[in-house]
Amino acid sequence: MHDATDIRLVVSALTLQEKARLLSGRGGWDTFAVERVAVPSIVLTDGPHGLRMQDPAAERFSFEASIPATCFPTAAALGSSWDVGLIGRIGEAVAAESRAAGVSVLLGPGVNIKRSPLCGRNFEYLSEDPLLSGHLGAAFVTGVQGAGVAASVKHFAANNQETDRMRIDARVDERTLREIYLAAFEHIVTTAKPWTVMAAYNKLNGVYATQNSWLLTEVLRDEWGFDGVVVSDWGAVTSPVAAVSAGLDLEMPSNNGASAESLVRAVTAGELDESVLDRAVTRLLELVGRTAPGREPGGAVDLDGHHALARIAAAESAVLLKNDHAILPLDPDADVSVAVIGEFARTPRYQGAGSSRVNATKVDNTLDAMTETAGQSMRLEFSPGFRLSGEEDPELLSAAVAAAGRADVAVLFLGLSEGVESEGHDRTDIELPADQRRLLEAVAEVNSRVVVVLANGGVVDVASWEGHAAAVLEGWLTGQAGGGAIADLLFGRANPCGRLAETIPLRLEDTPSFLDFPGSDSVVSYAERLYVGYRYYDARNMQVAYPFGHGLSYTAFEYSDLGTSIAGAGDGVAVRLRFTLTNSGSLPGKEVVQVYVGDPESSIDRPVRELKAFAKVELAPGASTQVEFELRARDFSFYSSTRGGWVLEAGDFDIHVGGSSRDCRLAARVTIDAPAQQAALTPDSTVGEWLAHPKAGPALLRAMSRVEGSAAASDPTVMRMVESLPLSRLVSMSGGRMDPEEIFGLFDAGEHV
Amino acid sequence: MHDATDIRLVVSALTLQEKARLLSGRGGWDTFAVERVAVPSIVLTDGPHGLRMQDPAAERFSFEASIPATCFPTAAALGSSWDVGLIGRIGEAVAAESRAAGVSVLLGPGVNIKRSPLCGRNFEYLSEDPLLSGHLGAAFVTGVQGAGVAASVKHFAANNQETDRMRIDARVDERTLREIYLAAFEHIVTTAKPWTVMAAYNKLNGVYATQNSWLLTEVLRDEWGFDGVVVSDWGAVTSPVAAVSAGLDLEMPSNNGASAESLVRAVTAGELDESVLDRAVTRLLELVGRTAPGREPGGAVDLDGHHALARIAAAESAVLLKNDHAILPLDPDADVSVAVIGEFARTPRYQGAGSSRVNATKVDNTLDAMTETAGQSMRLEFSPGFRLSGEEDPELLSAAVAAAGRADVAVLFLGLSEGVESEGHDRTDIELPADQRRLLEAVAEVNSRVVVVLANGGVVDVASWEGHAAAVLEGWLTGQAGGGAIADLLFGRANPCGRLAETIPLRLEDTPSFLDFPGSDSVVSYAERLYVGYRYYDARNMQVAYPFGHGLSYTAFEYSDLGTSIAGAGDGVAVRLRFTLTNSGSLPGKEVVQVYVGDPESSIDRPVRELKAFAKVELAPGASTQVEFELRARDFSFYSSTRGGWVLEAGDFDIHVGGSSRDCRLAARVTIDAPAQQAALTPDSTVGEWLAHPKAGPALLRAMSRVEGSAAASDPTVMRMVESLPLSRLVSMSGGRMDPEEIFGLFDAGEHV
Repeated sequence: MHDATDIRLVVSALTLQEKARLLSGRGGWDTFAVERVAVPSIVLTDGPHGLRMQDPAAERFSFEASIPATCFPTAAALGSSWDVGLIGRIGEAVAAESRAAGVSVLLGPGVNIKRSPLCGRNFEYLSEDPLLSGHLGAAFVTGVQGAGVAASVKHFAANNQETDRMRIDARVDERTLREIYLAAFEHIVTTAKPWTVMAAYNKLNGVYATQNSWLLTEVLRDEWGFDGVVVSDWGAVTSPVAAVSAGLDLEMPSNNGASAESLVRAVTAGELDESVLDRAVTRLLELVGRTAPGREPGGAVDLDGHHALARIAAAESAVLLKNDHAILPLDPDADVSVAVIGEFARTPRYQGAGSSRVNATKVDNTLDAMTETAGQSMRLEFSPGFRLSGEEDPELLSAAVAAAGRADVAVLFLGLSEGVESEGHDRTDIELPADQRRLLEAVAEVNSRVVVVLANGGVVDVASWEGHAAAVLEGWLTGQAGGGAIADLLFGRANPCGRLAETIPLRLEDTPSFLDFPGSDSVVSYAERLYVGYRYYDARNMQVAYPFGHGLSYTAFEYSDLGTSIAGAGDGVAVRLRFTLTNSGSLPGKEVVQVYVGDPESSIDRPVRELKAFAKVELAPGASTQVEFELRARDFSFYSSTRGGWVLEAGDFDIHVGGSSRDCRLAARVTIDAPAQQAALTPDSTVGEWLAHPKAGPALLRAMSRVEGSAAASDPTVMRMVESLPLSRLVSMSGGRMDPEEIFGLFDAGEHV
Repeated sequence: MHDATDIRLVVSALTLQEKARLLSGRGGWDTFAVERVAVPSIVLTDGPHGLRMQDPAAERFSFEASIPATCFPTAAALGSSWDVGLIGRIGEAVAAESRAAGVSVLLGPGVNIKRSPLCGRNFEYLSEDPLLSGHLGAAFVTGVQGAGVAASVKHFAANNQETDRMRIDARVDERTLREIYLAAFEHIVTTAKPWTVMAAYNKLNGVYATQNSWLLTEVLRDEWGFDGVVVSDWGAVTSPVAAVSAGLDLEMPSNNGASAESLVRAVTAGELDESVLDRAVTRLLELVGRTAPGREPGGAVDLDGHHALARIAAAESAVLLKNDHAILPLDPDADVSVAVIGEFARTPRYQGAGSSRVNATKVDNTLDAMTETAGQSMRLEFSPGFRLSGEEDPELLSAAVAAAGRADVAVLFLGLSEGVESEGHDRTDIELPADQRRLLEAVAEVNSRVVVVLANGGVVDVASWEGHAAAVLEGWLTGQAGGGAIADLLFGRANPCGRLAETIPLRLEDTPSFLDFPGSDSVVSYAERLYVGYRYYDARNMQVAYPFGHGLSYTAFEYSDLGTSIAGAGDGVAVRLRFTLTNSGSLPGKEVVQVYVGDPESSIDRPVRELKAFAKVELAPGASTQVEFELRARDFSFYSSTRGGWVLEAGDFDIHVGGSSRDCRLAARVTIDAPAQQAALTPDSTVGEWLAHPKAGPALLRAMSRVEGSAAASDPTVMRMVESLPLSRLVSMSGGRMDPEEIFGLFDAGEHV
């Protein structure tokens, strides 16, 4: 069953009942087989930062009862790596473990945009920016599918909160969808060709995503050319007939045949054409053909290699937010005492809760890794400082403060407790637990050399307490090998090179969707429109704690000699950038170079700047390299819902190259040629719009001047008000004093330009 | 033609053509007469801060060519008076001048909400708050109509910008309309019974206001009981048939019979029922009956009295923003030199541009008034400082700085130039002109005792320069007698008692609608919803330059002994407040006491606090008074579009009494009893909602526990995710393991509570 002919034959051999049955799950995690025509069952499992496959031996479902697998850093961490190659390798590794477990479809990557830091599932998502999400997501898909396992890009679409997630209606205008919430999916579908896409729980503009034909058929298949299977999120279908009609192929999980019965009934009653079922079954059989061959459980997996990869990934993903007086890295061979404070140093929090929870093969902790690395003259003293439950413990607190008082440096491991960040519910604030904040304050009173290492999936407030810390290392949720990676970074065995994939705001109240999250009455309005993340803070010119793209290094980089060249025009334009990047510091390191584009003058409001390209570049100390990018028409365009497509307006564009959205190192202005987008003049165009026209304008002014009793042409105040009148209204209000024939002549003059 | 029978007789005697003709203007400013049945023509003219009636002797239309009338302070000023009695007297005065001019309908008040400080017409509007706008607007209507002239409450509705005003489609959700943009109109219509309402230029949610039957009929007439005439804004009708069908009665101005022809054609063709015309004509004749009697031009008007009233009004409206070291008032008998700087001291800017522009009977300036009042030992030196055109003038600048250097005190008169604020276009920033800012800086360098007096209709930035001034007096656009009023305030002959009716933000970028004003492609989305003005700054906990309600006095007030009592419950609840206000200073003065209500816990997002009552109280030094308010159910309710009405939720409410939205002097929490608003449980209710039910919850939990293989009831992590599942989805996903009969039993249990 490897080619279209085979599949056609199989479909024609299937009964209506068999087809209907194939379109929903057999159990929780697999599809039906039809043995008489050699259609095997395939298995789908949770991901994406590791395989979560229910242990067949477990008595009942639990997120704890899954087979062991490598727990890579969560998406919140990987997003901060800005490293497409790394993420591709992780995709390969997860796919290898999946194949060994007999899995055909891995449910990931999750590329929903981080609309609010409160979204409980942000740890599973990559970024607030669609370009970064799209490029990283595509790399993951390519990695997974290269190993013969289907990726499932999720959650399609506008699934940006957990509150009321199965009923919430996300109201999003089309421009915002196209530019922000669909853009990462579009990039992945058109470049990495995922074999499946997962339709989300929520409604989009009034229609459940699983039953939304605009989303699943018009946009996904007809526009983007998606040729795979659309699978529902688990339990997301409310009407199987509406779903399959809209373009959904596979409803998960099983509902004991109820959906199959509905489909059969609808076909039998003539309410659903059987060809709709054939179409979905064909896609499902194509997926089986793509993923089933050789998918037998068992086979060797290099778990040690995966653990090592997870450690690299954790190191690449951590973001050094601040490092006053170069307090980091700590020299492991120095004669110093270090207080290692915080239960997380010993009991790491390394992943989030819910369906993505991996049963890790082993878990490193930073305390052990530091102890291993520290030289003989370094004295480490561990003190838990707080309880994981968040319950106040004055004894732990005072012991930790005493340890800090005795030490040269205090390294505090702080973060969110596991219950706070989970699929299924959102956060209500972005604060660190109160007991941890008090611990930090108390430690800072006795030790001025404080390093904070953070473990959290969603952004936490740092502004209110970072004055107490000389350095802050944001580790995110590091995966199972994060302990060693964090130790490597603290001791300078690795050089921090993660960059924020999400702005850290000064306050929750500053966040774009603050007044519209999570909605009420099962409706959420995306009122901030495309002003998500840095697009919002930049548009309102607001201070933030740390901007999108920010991250420090132990070395330094210089940017120089930006050159630009333009080839072509309009849709075919190509803008080439080239500049020199130099590692001007004394350590090898990686810089994430970022290219932002802004349109200083536009017919429509646009973000101040938007990420359009990036690369992670490694350089030895003193070394230089040429970095090149090519930007295309789409990188300069906006989506116009009135014109029904992407619009490139001729004119100047600002290009900003630098180390974060607010760290512009090199700037250039380019002028792009494109066909004029001016709308034709009509009777509904205003007098002002008419007067601006080179031919029709002067003629209209003459006609207006001749009208007796009209002050418009002679009185600037009146004129300024008349300019806003639609021309037809001016003619009508002139009460016959303007000659319609003459005005109609003007219409012609306008329409022909 | 004074009663319904007369009118019915007249209508039945009119021909179709006559009826149609009556429904649009005869000329620019009057209606048709039908002499054979004794229907007179009536005249409508611009207002509202004074009569603007085209001078019949003028050759062509111009905003300059109107008959002389008293120019009262503009609405931006009057809004800041918070004085319903004063505004009522102004209504009476404007109506007296209107009657003397033979006018039947005065086009005002303008009660549109100040959505953005950029709206070019904000000087014609009262406030950012609907309660304040409604109470002041109602007082104006009562004043005008008490003198036998019809008011026309405008611009109905959601006409909050000038950009593209004749085509713009204001997209506003219903809750926001009800709570913010319609609320002032509702209050005025239901309490002051205006005889006309003016339908606005813009579209509201896709339909022109003049043709919007939801707005003009369902809401205005059916819900609020409006029994007057809806007149179009001038030139606002695009389809006369659609307009009259929707509830518009009078299209203005004349279009030479074109609209009448359309109506006749539509009736003749059977597309429009003649009774629709009868209905509109009946209303028009009722208006004629209400306003025409004795409306003959001529008759005495007390212009001196009106000028004196205008002076009082200007003094009541000015807001003393700051007054460091009590630099104000200046003692006119002191032996000091005062540099009076700024052309506005001599050439006042006292009103805005556009249709509201009044040809003032006389104009006072502050320089003359100060000169008159100053004692012999005070030395005044005037220096224009800048040109009205905004053109830089280094000589004027240096002369002013020299004068300031010589003086003990410098009083600077700054403001916006007239061209910047006008009907017909919006502002693009909120800055004072650059030359004036430079002048202030230069003056502040040579004199530390600087007083700034502002003349502007829309809010201007003060944050960037107020550090240069010890005192700032916001005079707004004062009307023709403002010169004397400002001098009175500066010299302590009047005590400032104006309060901000609009927040002064720190920056334009901070304003609620910043990213959605003025829209594009002829659409503007009111994305900030009900978070307009202080509701936004409070919800986001933002700093502002000066909060809503703020204003200083030369005396001081103390609040004490707040008592509350509650009578009734639900819709009939009455919450009585009583507290003591004391003038603890040494001068007589007026305090604007403000009552705000907040709902600390609600099923829907609500503003932190909202103005629900206010009063302006005058007290002699040392005197005390008891202030009492009664709040009703509506003051605690929100509008729910899903429930289609106002909702009062039982529970606690916070009451805050004070001198501004951020100056809480007294606080109380009251508990209101009201019927439970809990929605009935349905299969679409979530497991969490079901579990919260006292009867159905425990039963469901038992049913869930019995399901084999389900971890929900025993695993808290799984349970937390399951809670968001609609119950029907849980049953379906249980694949038959949950007993539908048992679950249906639960539905019954839920539905009966």
